[in-house]
Amino acid sequence: MPVISVEIKFLPGVEDPEALTIHKNLKLLGYSGIKSLKTSKTYTFDIEVGQSDPHAMVKEISEKLLANPVIQSYTIKE
Amino acid sequence: MPVISVEIKFLPGVEDPEALTIHKNLKLLGYSGIKSLKTSKTYTFDIEVGQSDPHAMVKEISEKLLANPVIQSYTIKE
Repeated sequence: MPVISVEIKFLPGVEDPEALTIHKNLKLLGYSGIKSLKTSKTYTFDIEVGQSDPHAMVKEISEKLLANPVIQSYTIKE
Repeated sequence: MPVISVEIKFLPGVEDPEALTIHKNLKLLGYSGIKSLKTSKTYTFDIEVGQSDPHAMVKEISEKLLANPVIQSYTIKE
């Protein structure tokens, strides 16, 4: 079975509120050596054998449904 | 600067509600060739130069704060 992953990140310059909050709170907890922190989300698809073009399907799903192109980018890994 | 990532996944057998919902809705939208779907979250730390043991710090943060060991596992990537 083909396994395809899609990693979704915020575009450079877009604020990542979860990462900012974690970074701030880690500082308060004494973890001072962190310069910056980023988050990303990965969706791993296990595709059925016989699916004609799994890469194209995952690309379409990522573009249309998973990533918001205004603030996010996606990377497909096979 | 050392960059260290931590990927947090659900343990095998633990329900992943976001992935199940996306999988169900993709089927309804006509994407029928997906056998299963999993999600994971990645935190990427940009560590300041001079931090004595960045790997140990990130391991401690992952264990104590980012991952819930009852339902999640973490993988550190450098």
